[in-house]
Amino acid sequence: MKPYKELSRKELLDLRSELQAQYDEKKAQGMKLDISRGKPSWAQLDLSMPMMDSLTSDDEMIALDGTDVRNYGLLDGVPEAKHLMGDLMGADASRVIVCGNSSLNIMYDCVARSMLFGVMGSTPWSKLKKVKFLCPVPGYDRHFGVTEQFGIEMINIPMLEGGPDMDMVEEYVNNDLEVKGIWCVPLYSNPTGTVYSDETIKRMASLTPAAKDFRIYWDNAYCVHHLYDEEEKRGSILNILDECEKAGNPDMVYQFCSTSKVTFSGAGVAAISSSPANIADIKSRLKWSTIGFDKINQLRHARFFKDADGLREHMKKHAAILRPKFDIVLNTLERELGELDIASWTHPIGGYFVSFDATEGCAKKIVAKCKEAGLVLTGAGAAFPYGKDPHDSNIRIAPSMPPEDELVDAMDLFVVCVKLVTVEKMLEA
Amino acid sequence: MKPYKELSRKELLDLRSELQAQYDEKKAQGMKLDISRGKPSWAQLDLSMPMMDSLTSDDEMIALDGTDVRNYGLLDGVPEAKHLMGDLMGADASRVIVCGNSSLNIMYDCVARSMLFGVMGSTPWSKLKKVKFLCPVPGYDRHFGVTEQFGIEMINIPMLEGGPDMDMVEEYVNNDLEVKGIWCVPLYSNPTGTVYSDETIKRMASLTPAAKDFRIYWDNAYCVHHLYDEEEKRGSILNILDECEKAGNPDMVYQFCSTSKVTFSGAGVAAISSSPANIADIKSRLKWSTIGFDKINQLRHARFFKDADGLREHMKKHAAILRPKFDIVLNTLERELGELDIASWTHPIGGYFVSFDATEGCAKKIVAKCKEAGLVLTGAGAAFPYGKDPHDSNIRIAPSMPPEDELVDAMDLFVVCVKLVTVEKMLEA
Repeated sequence: MKPYKELSRKELLDLRSELQAQYDEKKAQGMKLDISRGKPSWAQLDLSMPMMDSLTSDDEMIALDGTDVRNYGLLDGVPEAKHLMGDLMGADASRVIVCGNSSLNIMYDCVARSMLFGVMGSTPWSKLKKVKFLCPVPGYDRHFGVTEQFGIEMINIPMLEGGPDMDMVEEYVNNDLEVKGIWCVPLYSNPTGTVYSDETIKRMASLTPAAKDFRIYWDNAYCVHHLYDEEEKRGSILNILDECEKAGNPDMVYQFCSTSKVTFSGAGVAAISSSPANIADIKSRLKWSTIGFDKINQLRHARFFKDADGLREHMKKHAAILRPKFDIVLNTLERELGELDIASWTHPIGGYFVSFDATEGCAKKIVAKCKEAGLVLTGAGAAFPYGKDPHDSNIRIAPSMPPEDELVDAMDLFVVCVKLVTVEKMLEA
Repeated sequence: MKPYKELSRKELLDLRSELQAQYDEKKAQGMKLDISRGKPSWAQLDLSMPMMDSLTSDDEMIALDGTDVRNYGLLDGVPEAKHLMGDLMGADASRVIVCGNSSLNIMYDCVARSMLFGVMGSTPWSKLKKVKFLCPVPGYDRHFGVTEQFGIEMINIPMLEGGPDMDMVEEYVNNDLEVKGIWCVPLYSNPTGTVYSDETIKRMASLTPAAKDFRIYWDNAYCVHHLYDEEEKRGSILNILDECEKAGNPDMVYQFCSTSKVTFSGAGVAAISSSPANIADIKSRLKWSTIGFDKINQLRHARFFKDADGLREHMKKHAAILRPKFDIVLNTLERELGELDIASWTHPIGGYFVSFDATEGCAKKIVAKCKEAGLVLTGAGAAFPYGKDPHDSNIRIAPSMPPEDELVDAMDLFVVCVKLVTVEKMLEA
């Protein structure tokens, strides 16, 4: 296989016919597959079924501090869940609020609270002329959805090897009063799999924001979601809470995590950790909106895992299921596209995604072609604010959900679509 | 026992000494009891422990529509839970969103959404100079807490025999553009136990609001919380959704309910029902804040009760535990205060509270005196917006939590405090 750009027009025309035939054949198979979202597979969900037995009618329903978890109370969660979730985030339990089943919901509420009430006494953002958030791209579509909902202007920040472009981040945050936040997925970023380097995190923690109510939205969604057991093949990052404290910015970060991809996406527990002052600020508002989150589910999780090490052990079982699927994706891409010089992609060692960059101007067409043949991918552009990929190049691949054999079919179709659309594009030129 | 107002000053002075002695004696017993909140007792919570076995690792985790409840999705809840909660509220499942464990949280979010985004395209309330809510008093302190948080001006509406003073409600709602809502607990109101009459509900449904984005916040918290089994001793109210529709106001009401006092206060399920247009409006915002609520707990509830009739059967067990406690409260009040003409109180046939009205200007002192002797009551004034009872007269009694023998002690102390404070007040005059 030669790089496509070395092909003559004649060769490209022949290739197009050949690829079109391959595509038509695959389309005729009537595939029906969805790899658009980072959803755990049935096999992964089954891993946590024993948890369903960790609190039955025979069990004590009393938390460590003596609270009956069945009754009202404990706004910030049961102690054992605060410990567990705190350990995952590198935060003391006193700096943790364990909430319901959705960390997205916690993030949304953090932004909503800032809009309505400000942050620690600052002007409510809804009273300001403009509010901006920095958005490392490609990034998590639902983050961008939250900020878009609130009319917050989003600014693209290129994602580099070790995290967001910190020169640009510093430039904005340290000088622009309207910049109130940055979305970060520091370990195994969605979708690039980027692991933030120590330098990135130290620079992040040492920002000197123009806006006092600037906060880093540190979505540590994949903090224990390694694909490899071996220590040297695992991503690890600095503790942002510690780094911010060391840098004299203890209140500059909100950290989030959940067990959505540890136990059940539909019924996990989610938590936020931050400085004592931020936690107090949040609780002073939160207490008007609820008396407490579901404490039985919190206790169920804590009893099941016992501690963070128990949970980390559990994650190895997820990795064992996920690894072969990532291998299918990466092997197919390498085998079929590796020498063609028409695309690049990430090689994640954790998280849920492979980020694929097609030739500029091809992503939408590739996604459309896949869909036409029965394969649903995340919408092209979804990983960018306002759904606008300036290069129309990025596609997020989420291999977790389908069984391996179906994923093989899906990837086979995908690479045909990539080739076909790229050749068509070259012929147009 | 003679009415106090017929006593001479000498008799009052003697009585004070006697009551003071009784109080000192009780205080010396070192009571430590809290009847401040409407919390279910352990015995009540135990009623739902079999539900802990209704979803174990052996059970199918698939909802009626084929959704794996363990995974992401189903923003509005699992079908069987929508049916169950809809039946409780008299709403078709298609008009229901089943959420997390807290109806307070749903109500808060409804107000927050209106502040941030408006209602069905109306101006966001945060952009308006003033927003007002009508607050039937005495009412539920947490309702008032929500509106106070958002800087919404609260207007007291007297609670009459069959519901709020509808003359006043109509006057405000139909003429004042700034009036955007009214808080209602239509069955067994918190704390008065009021059952809204058919006339009240029909007039409520027939309002012609000046503000298009006016909504009735219909907190049907006690929709199945009867104290008596006998049909003729039970409160029943008209279906507000139907009445609003009949009156040509289908979109004027949000209805809320939860299983907080059916299964577990810390881990129930809560829901909202409304018109299709309102539900669509809410979902169009909600989808940015979460992918879905805890579906496993929703399914757990639905499987446990099977249907609304199953749940209603279950409520009889709660009633059997609660009735004797209400009897203790009411019998003590009648025996000790019935002839003194210094207080009045409600005789609820459902719900969680007895509303007690002391002689004007005495409530705060009674609550303080009880507290001094170890009995925590809801803060005087709590049942009014801004915590301000204009007559300093109302005290909410929540008999559900303590065991019967402790409740007897609590009420014995309470009536002594009522008498003592009243006599002191009379002597001051």
